[in-house]
Amino acid sequence: MPSILDIRSAVVPISSDIANAYIDFSKMTASVVAVVSDVTRAGKPLVGYGFNSNGRYAPDGLLKERFIPRLAEADLGGDIDPVLAWTAMMSNEKPGGHGERSVAVGVLDMALWDLAAKIADVPLYQLLADRWRDGEVDSDVFVYAAGGYYYPGKGTRELQQELQSYRDRGYRVCKIKIGGADLGEDIERIEAAIEVVGEGGNLAVDANGRFDLETAVAYAEALQQYNLFWYEEAGDPLDFEIQAELGKIYPNPLATGENLFSHQDARNLLRYGGMRADRDWLQIDCALSYGLVEYKRFLDVLPDYGFDRTNCIPHGGHQMSLNIAAGLGLGGNESYPDVFAPFGGFSDATAVEDSRVGLHQCAGVGFEEKSNLIAVLRAATETD
Amino acid sequence: MPSILDIRSAVVPISSDIANAYIDFSKMTASVVAVVSDVTRAGKPLVGYGFNSNGRYAPDGLLKERFIPRLAEADLGGDIDPVLAWTAMMSNEKPGGHGERSVAVGVLDMALWDLAAKIADVPLYQLLADRWRDGEVDSDVFVYAAGGYYYPGKGTRELQQELQSYRDRGYRVCKIKIGGADLGEDIERIEAAIEVVGEGGNLAVDANGRFDLETAVAYAEALQQYNLFWYEEAGDPLDFEIQAELGKIYPNPLATGENLFSHQDARNLLRYGGMRADRDWLQIDCALSYGLVEYKRFLDVLPDYGFDRTNCIPHGGHQMSLNIAAGLGLGGNESYPDVFAPFGGFSDATAVEDSRVGLHQCAGVGFEEKSNLIAVLRAATETD
Repeated sequence: MPSILDIRSAVVPISSDIANAYIDFSKMTASVVAVVSDVTRAGKPLVGYGFNSNGRYAPDGLLKERFIPRLAEADLGGDIDPVLAWTAMMSNEKPGGHGERSVAVGVLDMALWDLAAKIADVPLYQLLADRWRDGEVDSDVFVYAAGGYYYPGKGTRELQQELQSYRDRGYRVCKIKIGGADLGEDIERIEAAIEVVGEGGNLAVDANGRFDLETAVAYAEALQQYNLFWYEEAGDPLDFEIQAELGKIYPNPLATGENLFSHQDARNLLRYGGMRADRDWLQIDCALSYGLVEYKRFLDVLPDYGFDRTNCIPHGGHQMSLNIAAGLGLGGNESYPDVFAPFGGFSDATAVEDSRVGLHQCAGVGFEEKSNLIAVLRAATETD
Repeated sequence: MPSILDIRSAVVPISSDIANAYIDFSKMTASVVAVVSDVTRAGKPLVGYGFNSNGRYAPDGLLKERFIPRLAEADLGGDIDPVLAWTAMMSNEKPGGHGERSVAVGVLDMALWDLAAKIADVPLYQLLADRWRDGEVDSDVFVYAAGGYYYPGKGTRELQQELQSYRDRGYRVCKIKIGGADLGEDIERIEAAIEVVGEGGNLAVDANGRFDLETAVAYAEALQQYNLFWYEEAGDPLDFEIQAELGKIYPNPLATGENLFSHQDARNLLRYGGMRADRDWLQIDCALSYGLVEYKRFLDVLPDYGFDRTNCIPHGGHQMSLNIAAGLGLGGNESYPDVFAPFGGFSDATAVEDSRVGLHQCAGVGFEEKSNLIAVLRAATETD
């Protein structure tokens, strides 16, 4: 019966010279954890790795104060079951208040799923498909290139060069930020972007929750003519009234959810946010939201509100969500071709073609087939 | 122009041999902070103190990783203004995800208000009344005794003895837990409690978010006959549908909000939770929710939904909320006569009479008039 020998954590920078509407990423950090098992293969112990995706900080104190000790002391029932581990990690935690600890649990949950798939000696997407989807796996997954940040001195020419670079790497759909400039300047950026990506249906825009209702509506009215791929997170992520108002007046797809960190919060979006199952997108990111165990609860409430898994394209651009997308049939996954390296991006051997990416073949989440990431994960946690 | 010389933090236990429906408090902790200024009085520097109230853990890592460094580096505009400090502490934080960091900011916010009032040489309630209420202060504040926890081996006789002890100390209204037993046993406990407190209108009950809709409704139907003071947090704090359903079927007062940690989350309760301004109670606790700066935003949205400050009786039982209650005219404050010492409770010189408590006279939050608390605050932070 496998058991956990050691749990290690470290903090690494996610340093990027970029800013969106809210965040200067130059001080951003991520936690990296390694869960070392007593199962050996080829003479080495199997190790599960996890990290948190961008936008929030390394939950280093929370991991060390509460969640690693609880996991280390947990009785996992003679197996390394991420669901039992989740319950143990969340013991003595009150309901509500879903932030920060949701990141800490998400980091450990990723490592536990990586380890569970390695022990089963299958890619994680296959483990998930076998457990929750009759074994069927999507052989490739829709991905879009997220970028288009504001930089000091960056004009529409540099924006076009950036997007052309994504197109050259196989991305049909690209995303740019809005809301860091005024509407007039943002419209210039959007029109410049469409010149590169070919049509509005290949361009998504993201306001990062910056707009009040009036601004959100003004943008909606101005954006409508371009038939964009989506208009993302216009207002505060918990202001479901703004979202619901956009759902009434904006005919094209809307997307939100990256800052909702529990199935209860996401359910409130479905209940009150006026999201439309026939066109809108849900971006909950398990790596910030208590991990896959909680994400599965979110997937399970979707049908109650007329949605299904194909409405989901998670935030984060990491391999964990790629596995969930392929194994459980999500609508796709984010990708950051140029930022948040090495945490973003997929297996070295998989190229993007027409905005679809193939899958890794090794056991686990696939970190061992992404050379720059596995090097960081091993070095930070002193594992090999 | 006053400035901050040092910010110190420490972790102290809130050890209690009690459990509610969710939490074993024996592992609970609190952060204590001291903000040391360069303003001296009677030869000593003025120090502001803060701590987090019960139910969540000491946010030690978050304080040290992000919020103390940001506060230490902040330009507070030549003054020690808690509002400017709040903005500095929340720089580079994304919207949404309100938990844990809300506790860290709440701890520092409390210390900053304590310090600001000490520099102004007035009790905090007076500073607040002068700033936001034309100077009027309530001379005493409604408080109720929170207790009635489940203990191993505790029967209705011991429950009655506990409540009688609160009554003997001047509390008219007392609160007990429900949901840790089945409905039949809880009804026995409620009837035993009413024997002591005299009538249902002197008894509140608290389910700590444990119930699903069916159980919440079954309790509502059974509780109705007792005309209780309130029925608190029946369902998950973010499941506003359960709350709204109770608002339709339960004629007597409902209370909730201690696990909503931002004005956006609290606003969603007002928008979707079916709370009734003519009888229901809002229990947002600033010490868990980004402090008074954010709590003021919550107070400011109340009128949009037909509520006012008298609907608010904060969770937590600490002096910070007592100051807000007296200075800004809230409906009252919680009190824990026997648990969470020394953080709960009020000035040594103030006795409770008919469930009302008087105010401290010293400058600041009043810690210096609560001997067991100020001793802990000073010892933990090595200040005097």
